[in-house]
Amino acid sequence: MKKIDVGIVGYGVVGNGVAKVLEEKKDLLYKKSGVEINLKKVFTRNWNKKFPYPLPEEKKAQSLDELLNDDDIAIIVELTGGVDFPYQLMKSAIERGKHIVTANKALLAEKGKEIFSIAEDKGIRIGYEAAVAGGIPIIRALREGLVANKILKIYGILNGTTNYILTNMYKKGKDFKTALKEAQELGYAEADPTLDINGTDAAHKIAILASLSYGGFLDFSQIYIEGIESIHPLDIELGKELGYVLKLLAIAKGHNGEVEVRVHPTFLPEDNPLSKVDGVFNAVMVEGDNVGESMFYGEGAGSLPTASAVVSDIVDISKSIAEGVGREIEITSMNWEHKDLSLTRVSDFYTRYYLRFTVPDVTGILAKVAAVFAKFNISIAAVIQKEKVVSMYREKNSEKIIPLVILTHTASENNIQQAIKEIENQEITVEKTVIIRVEDEE
Amino acid sequence: MKKIDVGIVGYGVVGNGVAKVLEEKKDLLYKKSGVEINLKKVFTRNWNKKFPYPLPEEKKAQSLDELLNDDDIAIIVELTGGVDFPYQLMKSAIERGKHIVTANKALLAEKGKEIFSIAEDKGIRIGYEAAVAGGIPIIRALREGLVANKILKIYGILNGTTNYILTNMYKKGKDFKTALKEAQELGYAEADPTLDINGTDAAHKIAILASLSYGGFLDFSQIYIEGIESIHPLDIELGKELGYVLKLLAIAKGHNGEVEVRVHPTFLPEDNPLSKVDGVFNAVMVEGDNVGESMFYGEGAGSLPTASAVVSDIVDISKSIAEGVGREIEITSMNWEHKDLSLTRVSDFYTRYYLRFTVPDVTGILAKVAAVFAKFNISIAAVIQKEKVVSMYREKNSEKIIPLVILTHTASENNIQQAIKEIENQEITVEKTVIIRVEDEE
Repeated sequence: MKKIDVGIVGYGVVGNGVAKVLEEKKDLLYKKSGVEINLKKVFTRNWNKKFPYPLPEEKKAQSLDELLNDDDIAIIVELTGGVDFPYQLMKSAIERGKHIVTANKALLAEKGKEIFSIAEDKGIRIGYEAAVAGGIPIIRALREGLVANKILKIYGILNGTTNYILTNMYKKGKDFKTALKEAQELGYAEADPTLDINGTDAAHKIAILASLSYGGFLDFSQIYIEGIESIHPLDIELGKELGYVLKLLAIAKGHNGEVEVRVHPTFLPEDNPLSKVDGVFNAVMVEGDNVGESMFYGEGAGSLPTASAVVSDIVDISKSIAEGVGREIEITSMNWEHKDLSLTRVSDFYTRYYLRFTVPDVTGILAKVAAVFAKFNISIAAVIQKEKVVSMYREKNSEKIIPLVILTHTASENNIQQAIKEIENQEITVEKTVIIRVEDEE
Repeated sequence: MKKIDVGIVGYGVVGNGVAKVLEEKKDLLYKKSGVEINLKKVFTRNWNKKFPYPLPEEKKAQSLDELLNDDDIAIIVELTGGVDFPYQLMKSAIERGKHIVTANKALLAEKGKEIFSIAEDKGIRIGYEAAVAGGIPIIRALREGLVANKILKIYGILNGTTNYILTNMYKKGKDFKTALKEAQELGYAEADPTLDINGTDAAHKIAILASLSYGGFLDFSQIYIEGIESIHPLDIELGKELGYVLKLLAIAKGHNGEVEVRVHPTFLPEDNPLSKVDGVFNAVMVEGDNVGESMFYGEGAGSLPTASAVVSDIVDISKSIAEGVGREIEITSMNWEHKDLSLTRVSDFYTRYYLRFTVPDVTGILAKVAAVFAKFNISIAAVIQKEKVVSMYREKNSEKIIPLVILTHTASENNIQQAIKEIENQEITVEKTVIIRVEDEE
């Protein structure tokens, strides 16, 4: 029987879950893998707290070096936060020949290139199933299950906090602030929800999926990211009238040697399977050239779902170690094309658009807007102009102000931005135009 | 660079897809796996046909022995039909040290124990991702991604033909025969659809998932299987009124050392993610003790989706061979508990029931039925008694005949069967009672 010793760094919600699963599932994991996985030591900065899964004293490390210098420990499970500290930690662990399992999406999205390059040189494996979509085994699906596919498109609902908020806004007509407050009260949003709300967390995750699918690293700072902070209930309502559900969608599409990666509020047709993913659940839709559309759905966060993913990587790597897998063959990296990915420029996005103009209720407005659209080759698919003034619209200079919603056919982002600029320059509108992208076949 | 030679036996729809994918994706597979996978030979009984993916002459084998006796061929891909021929083929291949990839669910469900036992003795791997749910990587998810979970429950929509028919009946009010005919015209049902319609195909697949999840083989002949042949549109309609969608559900649940495996038409609440799986799509919902509920959705059949799964196994095994993985560690079998699974007896099923009694429209009937239910400790959750006689009900002996639908709380199959027997013995009903099981939390 082979025994593999594991050390954990960071003992928060996920760390406690991983320790619990490793201890309570020891027999099951042995039966299923043929390897005995032993949690040897855990390091956290402060042991003077109450932990949901308390550890015996002999497993509590008082310094990081206790783990790094322990030659028995073959796998370091990195469950700290941030980027710089875990980056240094991983480097040290890799130098000592230890394999890595991590749930740190920020690190992989922003420093993946550096860390995988060091790991490859040393023949070290990095498991990161838990970094994207919690318990859903999407990394394994892309790396192995769908290996025979060219990935055409990935659509992900990758952030439970924003999906909970948007579901609440859609189903109960709540405004953003109220929905956020409720999410915080229920523990579905953190006290500082910035990285969730502004789309950064979802962007970290789609960056990882894009790298894995298209075989190279990308410049995270160049990804187009838009959060849900400014979403108004009126647009959710009007979208519903058009048959759409609003989701914070993380998108990756490959075409012509480029990868289009973007995260933004997106209208999806209500019969799209992703439209039915409610609350804190995550889902990833993958379109492969052979497999067609497939979807993976489950809990995207939380102690035990995330631990489930972390432990699956520990098992995987433990089996490799026990089997003595040759280093030259094992492809651990996301970098299988051995080149950096080029991101499609924002101005080259092609998609459909929902545009809400705020205009005076006078004749001829639609004609003016339509004229500008024609000039920029933007084709109109649907128009909603409400006779009844919606309450948010005040009378301005004794004119009635109304929303004018236009749904376009596929257009380029560049043309849309230019058209809106010209419409605003002509002072046809009296407020900033609301732009929401629409993913819908036509 | 390692090169692995592959032989295919059977050149039908899936075989053509596999050959196409292996040839067209050769570079991609090499980049992602580090192994060159070479389709060396294909055997089929009759080469005098037109094939969707024609092969060059040098790849056409004229006898099975050309593959079996070729020492270069490391993997045999079995894509024939039936049970006996592929069983003999696999035995011969295993004896010659060749690994196996198969899409043959009937064989694995009915002869899995024998074939895995021979394979284990010889250190041979068997890949069967394609045997369940086509392109959806559910085998890998259960074996690896969810390895850290005790599997509590699996619900599968595992047969596209029946799901297409039921979707058509639900959405368009079609009767079974019409819906079947339309499915045949569109190529979604075979000329002889028996094994799909009567639930056998779904049962083969859930038997495999149950073995993998609970770690032992089971007696396929003891699985409770009910098909969709007798489903009447009236029940779909009445179920809809109660908020349910009818699916042919394949169920596996583990409890108290037993596994409950059953395949039958099942009412699911309309907000269950599986209720929204329409048409020929497949989906598997897995509940694990750590991961919670997760769902896997995609195309369950067809040439390229199935080929996607077959090739993922070829890659997996090729990597293992190239890496020289130690035979003693690799757990290839579904038999990780090393014991046979005990199936829960049908009389011990506990679930909710939809019962449609056909009764004369006279006072006191409900009271009589309720009295029998009380005697057998069956608790009633809802009743639908229609004033308006539904057209299928004829006048009988000048009495009006009506449907009386009762939805129960959780009850034992045994009590339900006894209650129905007593009700029928008392001649309260005038036709055979319709029983549809309901999977719904309470």
